[in-house]
Formats: sequence, C-alpha cells, structure tokens
Amino acid sequence: MSGKVYLVGAGPGDPELLTVKAARLLRNADAVLHDDLVSTGILQLISAKAVVTNVGKRCGTKAIRQEEINFLMVNLALAGLQVARLKSGDPLLFGRGGEEIEALRKAGVDYEVVPGVTSALGAAAIAEIPLTDRRASSAVVFVTGHQAPGKNDSDWTALVNSGATLVVYMPGAKYGEVAERLKLAGLTGETPCAIISRATTPEQKVHRTTVRELIAAPKLPAPTLLVVGQVVHFGAAGVRDLYQMMAGDCKQAEERRAQLRD
Amino acid sequence: MSGKVYLVGAGPGDPELLTVKAARLLRNADAVLHDDLVSTGILQLISAKAVVTNVGKRCGTKAIRQEEINFLMVNLALAGLQVARLKSGDPLLFGRGGEEIEALRKAGVDYEVVPGVTSALGAAAIAEIPLTDRRASSAVVFVTGHQAPGKNDSDWTALVNSGATLVVYMPGAKYGEVAERLKLAGLTGETPCAIISRATTPEQKVHRTTVRELIAAPKLPAPTLLVVGQVVHFGAAGVRDLYQMMAGDCKQAEERRAQLRD
Repeated sequence: MSGKVYLVGAGPGDPELLTVKAARLLRNADAVLHDDLVSTGILQLISAKAVVTNVGKRCGTKAIRQEEINFLMVNLALAGLQVARLKSGDPLLFGRGGEEIEALRKAGVDYEVVPGVTSALGAAAIAEIPLTDRRASSAVVFVTGHQAPGKNDSDWTALVNSGATLVVYMPGAKYGEVAERLKLAGLTGETPCAIISRATTPEQKVHRTTVRELIAAPKLPAPTLLVVGQVVHFGAAGVRDLYQMMAGDCKQAEERRAQLRD
Repeated sequence: MSGKVYLVGAGPGDPELLTVKAARLLRNADAVLHDDLVSTGILQLISAKAVVTNVGKRCGTKAIRQEEINFLMVNLALAGLQVARLKSGDPLLFGRGGEEIEALRKAGVDYEVVPGVTSALGAAAIAEIPLTDRRASSAVVFVTGHQAPGKNDSDWTALVNSGATLVVYMPGAKYGEVAERLKLAGLTGETPCAIISRATTPEQKVHRTTVRELIAAPKLPAPTLLVVGQVVHFGAAGVRDLYQMMAGDCKQAEERRAQLRD
C-alpha cells in the first residue's frame, strides 16, 4: 500500500471535538507528527503501534524547522506509511498548512486535508459569544497577534473600521500592547472584549473586560484568544464567570467580586 | 431527568466531519430540530426513537419563524427531553445562535453550545486553499452575501482594504452583482477567487476564476462559498479541477480546456 499524508485538524482541545474522521485517522495512522499545542487526551487516541513525534515549535530548547517537518512527512509517506500531520484547530488557518501542502505536491506524495474546529469557535462556544449577530456584527475577522515580518498596524485599522467582530489568535501576554494597538486602530476604550484561555479543556477560563481595562486583566494560561466587539455583550452573564473563577482560582474570584461591587 | 438543549454544529456536509461529541449527542437525543441545509447522511445518524423536525427556512412554502423555533426548543426541554438544535457549520456563525441562546436563558432552560467545522474550512480543505498564508495574507474575514437591513457596502471596502482573505458565505447565484460589489470595494479584476459548491459532499465542485471573470462562472448548486484573495493561487492545481469537472460535467470540462488552451 502506498503512503499518504493527512493534514488533520485537532480542534480546540477537547478530544470529543475532534471530527469523527480525525479520530478514525488517528486510530489507524502509522505515524503522527503533531503540534505542541495538541492535548494529551487527543494524543491518547493514537494507536500504540504508531510512531509519534512532537514537531511543535515549543518542544524543549531546540526548535524543529519547517523544512525538517516537510522532510519527515514526505519520507514517511514515501516509505509507505499512513501519516497524520496533526495541527491544533484547523490545518489551513495560521499553521503553515499551505507550505506543507506545497512540499507534498512537489514530492508527488498523496495527501488530503481534513478540516477541524478552529480555536475561535471553541472559545466562542464556551463563552457563549455569537461571533456574528444581526443586531451587532455581520462579519468576523480572524487575525494573529504574531504578524509576519513587513506587516504593520494599518491592517488592523481597516479591519476595525469594517465593524466586524475581531478575534485575535495568540494575542500573547502583553495585553497592554494589544490594547494600544486596538486603540490606535480606532477602537474606543469602552469596546467590550474577552480573553478566553484553554477553551474546551477542564482548565478553561473566560475573562470579560473592555479595551481600556484590558491592561489590568489577569494573565491567563496559554493558549488564549481575544474576542473584541459588541457581540461580547451577548456572552454568558458575568455571574457564570464568577462561579467558574471561584471553582478555579479563589483569589481571582475575590478580585472579580470586588470589581462587581464597585 | 431534566431537559437540556444542545446547540450543535453539523459541520460542512460530510457526516464524518461531525465532531465526535455531535455524533454522540445525535445518537442520544430525544428530539432534533435541524436546519434545511443539514445533509441526509447526518440525519441518518439520529436515533430512530427521536422526534425529528426540519425547522429550516426553505422547507416547503411556509417558513417557520424564529419565535416558533425558540418556542419548540424551550418547551421540548421543559418537558424533560434532550434536544439537539442542529445547525449547519458552526452554531455561532451566521445562524442566529445568539438569539436562540437568549431565548433559552430567558426561559431558564439548561443549554450547551457544541462548536462545529464551519463551511469555510470545509471549502478551504477540498480546494486546498490556505485561508491565511504568511506569503500572502495574515488574516481572514467571514462575511455573508445576505446582509442585515441597514448595512451597506462600506463594510466591504474596509475589509478589502485590510488585505485579508475574504470568504463570502451564501454569495447567491448573481455572481455579477457580487463581482461589482467586490470591485466597488476596491479589488482589482485580476484578484483570484474560487466558488466552492457542496464542499465535503460527493457532489463537491470547485471553480477557480478572477473577480473580472466571475460573472461568466457556471452557476454551481447551493450551498456555495466564495473565497477571494491571493491565497487562491496556492489552491489545488488547475489540472485537478479539470479531472473533477470531467467526472461531473463534460460540457464544463470542455469549456475549461478551451480556456486553458487560450
């Protein structure tokens, strides 16, 4: 049997939010090359006979270059193996999926893209924020906090002017800088926003705030997402967050209660 | 046992692109209220004992109003049933999910949002178009061809100016009008775009063109999506489309071959 590479979306974190197809491919794969952000619960679904390699950028001190990932994918497939290239969220959003496809085409290796639930949708689901809503926003934009070299803030200005809901993937922990960028792009300090941490996992947390207050938000564990726009008002009521925080972190809950009293 | 409503994403079409969780909920639901666009293959996964209702806007001549859908969801749950409200793609994108959540909150009914693979990601996967790519676009925008009343083209101008990849959900069959709107918003006629029809189903088709030539594109069966931007260049090679079209429609293939010869 000839080999094949499946570029598979692992979804936002919860193993049950894998697609049925992704779960089947993981059970049957001979080799799995996965991102660092893919959760343990998902990795446990992989067949015991499979060779599993973490090719994530954050594993240990030595980063694996993109060329090495491409080399691995191509050569495992040429050796006749069924290879799952497992990427967090969806494989064609913010993940060099396009470059990996090109490497496979050039090598003449058979491949297939299996879409996944992107992190923004997992985050919206747990925060109960409709990303579009005919009362507030008819479009949504996905951007990344880590911009490619040569890009500048003018992009954000145009996006903000459109009135679309903005979802920032990987906003980083420097909330003050992100807030400045949003204000420079033209958003008012009152614009509601929400930081969503580890959505769809047992450690998930939601912190609702405004662009002005973003700088004072608690640093929540990565991966996080930032949702910005009037639709955040339609999210789960503050009292629900309060209970979540009480279960997770008493100190944060205390602070939040103090805020609510003010 | 008290009732509960699950707002469940059905994904882009292929039953295997349901999440594992969605498939489990459909097997166990007592009642299912589904959109018209949800495919037969997915409906076949529902337990035979469940009451299944098509609440889609296109079923027959009489449209079911949003208030009636809300009434059904609330009362089935209050009667103690496990209710799956099955929405095509993801439940919080372009689907009045926010309004349905509000109705459930007001009625004090227990509910949960289960995210799904949104249609844009299914379409990107089969057309092999990376929606973001560090060589071309660092952001993607999802808009709908059907705008809410009061909205105007200025939104599109801002979005187009951002340089983001544009995905138009439900662009309709009047490709000429969409092309005009894209040109008015500032896009050049050379901008590549792709119409993707019934992605992830056996009838899927991809037609690659440019904003200028969009008006002459074949009318592909709904549901369709339009992807606009330089990333379309990274999609599957034209020759692959040619084979797909030959299998599907000889006349189209003939025209396409004529185009390729020119």
